[in-house]
Formats: sequence, structure tokens, C-alpha cells
Amino acid sequence: MRAIEITRSGGPEVLEWREVPDPEPGRGDVLIDVAASAVNRADVLQRQGNYRPPQGASPYPGLEVSGVVAAVGADVEHFKAGDEVCALLAGGGYAERVAVPWQQVMPVPRGVRLEEAAGLPEVACTVWSNVFMLGRLRKGETLLVHGGASGIGTFAVQLAKAFGANVVVTVGSSGKGERVKELGADAYVNYREEDFAEQVKADVILDIMGAKYLAGNVRALKTGGRLVVIGMQGGRKAELDLGVLLAKRASVHGTTLRARPVEEKGAIVRSVVENVWPLVDAGAVRPVVFAELPMSDAAEAHRMVDSGDHVGKILLVR
Amino acid sequence: MRAIEITRSGGPEVLEWREVPDPEPGRGDVLIDVAASAVNRADVLQRQGNYRPPQGASPYPGLEVSGVVAAVGADVEHFKAGDEVCALLAGGGYAERVAVPWQQVMPVPRGVRLEEAAGLPEVACTVWSNVFMLGRLRKGETLLVHGGASGIGTFAVQLAKAFGANVVVTVGSSGKGERVKELGADAYVNYREEDFAEQVKADVILDIMGAKYLAGNVRALKTGGRLVVIGMQGGRKAELDLGVLLAKRASVHGTTLRARPVEEKGAIVRSVVENVWPLVDAGAVRPVVFAELPMSDAAEAHRMVDSGDHVGKILLVR
Repeated sequence: MRAIEITRSGGPEVLEWREVPDPEPGRGDVLIDVAASAVNRADVLQRQGNYRPPQGASPYPGLEVSGVVAAVGADVEHFKAGDEVCALLAGGGYAERVAVPWQQVMPVPRGVRLEEAAGLPEVACTVWSNVFMLGRLRKGETLLVHGGASGIGTFAVQLAKAFGANVVVTVGSSGKGERVKELGADAYVNYREEDFAEQVKADVILDIMGAKYLAGNVRALKTGGRLVVIGMQGGRKAELDLGVLLAKRASVHGTTLRARPVEEKGAIVRSVVENVWPLVDAGAVRPVVFAELPMSDAAEAHRMVDSGDHVGKILLVR
Repeated sequence: MRAIEITRSGGPEVLEWREVPDPEPGRGDVLIDVAASAVNRADVLQRQGNYRPPQGASPYPGLEVSGVVAAVGADVEHFKAGDEVCALLAGGGYAERVAVPWQQVMPVPRGVRLEEAAGLPEVACTVWSNVFMLGRLRKGETLLVHGGASGIGTFAVQLAKAFGANVVVTVGSSGKGERVKELGADAYVNYREEDFAEQVKADVILDIMGAKYLAGNVRALKTGGRLVVIGMQGGRKAELDLGVLLAKRASVHGTTLRARPVEEKGAIVRSVVENVWPLVDAGAVRPVVFAELPMSDAAEAHRMVDSGDHVGKILLVR
């Protein structure tokens, strides 16, 4: 098969569409003929040499795909050849075929094109596991999402609104802010012009900035608030004021999806199919796709992500 | 009635046993003829002028009492005059009588003397709400408790062992460590001689040191670990390494019991009576009492606490 190889650490040009060995599926794996994958920031970090794939993961980038089941291992009961599916991967999605533990495979929601479904697993599993399973966002509470125009942001806004929460996002331009308001956000803060911690008080915060936003995030939490940090684009070490944390009876959670063991990913995937897919089926939550490029043009897709002008997901289609 | 007044901020000598106005119970209050109260570190901080009682709380120190119900307000259904009870207070326990919302009142567990019961509400509610309700300690997991010889420490050790967890404590002397092992602790670390973060890996940490221990605590957490900070004896601001938190998928919780609204205290109290009292009834968890002094000698009791040589609770009896 062919796959995108990271030929060395560097810019988008290091991504090359090459002939590589086929994956070797195990007894518990589903082999998927890939229809599409999607770009995640972790792919960019991996390309730059700043994110090592977890032990045992494919060397090719790509944390999610959609496609058609080509074959299943002897222990797989829930899927069969010909099923249209999407899947959460530990890597290897930028390829013609990928093998993935069956626990990480999901049906394609109704009314979503097969290619569009490639952009759902990461955002759905990330937002559901962090904002709802871990952060326990409840109806009537306020969610603050940093990077509101990202794939995660656009999905979090829709999902939180569908569950009756108020949603505020931070964005880098008013154009992006208006676009995210169309998706349901109640308000946005342009972080280039305003201090979000002055503008927002939130019950749950989904953060990708890490150190740079830690003090502001803690300041923006309400009593009983939960800060969930899933990225460190603004560094890893910062001062924490435990006095504020105690006075607010608040919490700071750090977490990642990719490094979790298969059983934990499986529990998240099952919960997503049970709780999130019905809302996608019903059209209340939709994939937000900024662009679709041929998978062989992964370098161009990475340039788009690096420029930061996109709203929603960038897909790589076969 | 008489009560201990904090006549000014300062050492133990500022505590004076004086004639003061009786409490005025509201419709939802239980009026208790106090048999005993117990000393908590928050009382010492309040005496020093470093802990302001929450809005509406009694000006007298004392966060817990045991005694006999003297009268109940018109809205109180669950208690009646003559009942032997203990109660979690927002203040006012060092007194002959105290009025407290009925939600914060508990029966005296079987086999516990009325006076001994004065030392149970704070430790039981603190340990249950933080280690079990918030920290979700499970059978087979490891709990690390800082200040293992304190009232909270001695209770946490017994309760965690009763629920099948492993328990390690930090203490300031091997004498204290051996005493806490008699209560069931699996191991202790003398913090004057060893670095606990090198010795222990824990699923849940109950911390009273705050800033001084933050880095070590995060280092000592296992994957999925929960750090619950309930005191800041070692300062309030410290550097947090979010990289470690994310890699471990761990969390830092700050919380306090005293400032919570009555409904939240009531929920904790109900859960304690349901889950902890049966273990006290059965003798699996016992109050650990270091000394009992007359309430009028509160100053002497505070000197004992200041010296830090005690193991367990110091009671003030009428």
C-alpha cells in the first residue's frame, strides 16, 4: 500500500506519499480500507519531531480515519467486511489501509458522508471524554473552550449547546468568532484584544495552551470549576495559586487521549457511540470541514494547519 | 452561656472562657447542649488572625461538637430534644451551647462515648468527602496521607484500610510513624529524613502542605492519580509541571469544608452517616483521642497543638 511517510523531522515538505509494507492485523484488529483521514495538531508535532508516537503505534501520522472494513481478526465479533466505519487510531491514518483494535472502531453516523466521518473520532472522543466524562459539564453550566475555531472547538461548541450548556470560546479573529457563533457559541473573546479571564467565568474550561493560560484559567473558574488541560501549546510549567484553587474548590486535570491503553479508549468510544452519535444522527451536531485534499497532498494540508486560518477540520481523502 | 472568646489575635493566651449571649436558633436549626468540642488547625489559624470565619458563622472557635439536643426549630423533623448527637459546625463549638443547621447534625455512632464523638465530624467529613467522594479511592489503590499522625491522618488511615486500600503516611518522627502503623498504615516516611516523592507512588494523595509539596506530590502520583489539597501549611503558590500532569492523566483538586454552603455540607454528612458510621459502629474505625481537657483550658489545648507532639485529636470537654 501507499502511506505518508515522515522522511525526517521538519516542515510540511518532509511528508512523502510512498509505497510501504501493508499493516499486519492481529486477532483483535479491524483492517480498514481508508476512505479519508484528518489532520490533527499532534500530526504536525510528530512531523516536527516533537511528539513521539506511543509504543507499538504505526510510524505514519494520522489519528483517525473513515473507510470500509476489508477484513477482521479471528476475535472480532462486532464488525464484518464491507461495514462503513470510522476509527480512533494511535497512528497510521495517512495510508491506504490501517489495522486498529476493534474497540476503537465506530459506525459512521447517519447522514454523514463516509469521508466526513474521518473528522469525527478525534474531536468526538476528545470533547466527550474531557468535557463530559471527566469535566462533568451539566445543563445550565458555562463551558469555556480555547481555540474555538479548531476541530475540537467547533465540535465542543455544538455538543455543549446540544446538552443545554452556555458556551464561550476564545478565537484569534472576529471573523472566526462570528463563524463559531453561527455554530451556536453564546459569545467569543478575541484573545488578541481582550483578557479572557476578565470576560468569562466558567464551570468547565477545555484548554490547549497549558502554562501560558494556567493563571488566567484558574482565575476564570467558578466555584467548583474544572479546568481540563489537553495541550501545552503555551508551555508546560507555570505557577499555580493553590489559594485560589482551594477557595474555589476547583480542580486542574491534565490528560491525553493518544497514550491511553486500548481498554480506556474502548470505554470512551463506546460512550461516544451511545451519547454523541445520536446527536450527530439527528443533525444537532455536525462535522465542520474546512477543506478536503487528496491524501498525497498531505504536505499542503499541513501548510494550511500551520497557517492557522482554518475553521474546523482538514480532511485527507483517497 | 459561656464560650471561649478570641479576645484578640495572638498566642493561646488570647483564648478566654467568658459569659456571652446565648445562640439564637433559626427554624432549621438544632440547639445542642455541648458535651465536648475538639481542636482543629483552623481554630489555631483563626486565633492567630489568619483564618476569617465564613459569613454568618459564630465568632467563637470550634468546628465540631458532641452533646444533647436541647431544642429544635419548627422546620426540623429528624432530631428531637434529648437526642445524643455530634455536628459539623462553621464555628462556635467552644461553648456551652451551639445552634447548627439540622443538615449538619449526626447521631453518635454506637460504642463511642458522647465526648469522644466530638472528635469525629471534622475528620470523618473531611476524609470521606476528599479521599472517597472527590478522590474516589478504590480497593487495592494506594493512598498517601501527609500528616499521618494528625486527627485527619489517623482517621484516613483507618478508613482507607477498612475499604481495602494500601496506605502510606508521612510523619515527623519514627515514634509517630510506629503509632500510625498500629492503626493500620502499611508504611510511613519520616519527612525529616527522606523524600516521600522518591519512596511512594500513590493513586490518591491527601495533602495539607500546599505549595511546598506540590512538585513532590505530582511526582508521587501514579497514572490517573488524584491530588487533593486541603491545606496550605507550606504556602500557596508553586510551579506546576503540566507536562507531568498530562503524561500521567492526573488531577489536582483544591477544596475546603468550612466555607461550603449548608446543602453541600448536608450531602457530605448524609454520605458519612451512610458509609462511614457503620464502620465506626462495627469498631473497624475508632476515634483516636490524644487528650481531653476542660473547655475552659482551651489555651492549654492550643499549646499542645502548637507543639505538634500529639497523635490524633485533642478534646475540650465541659
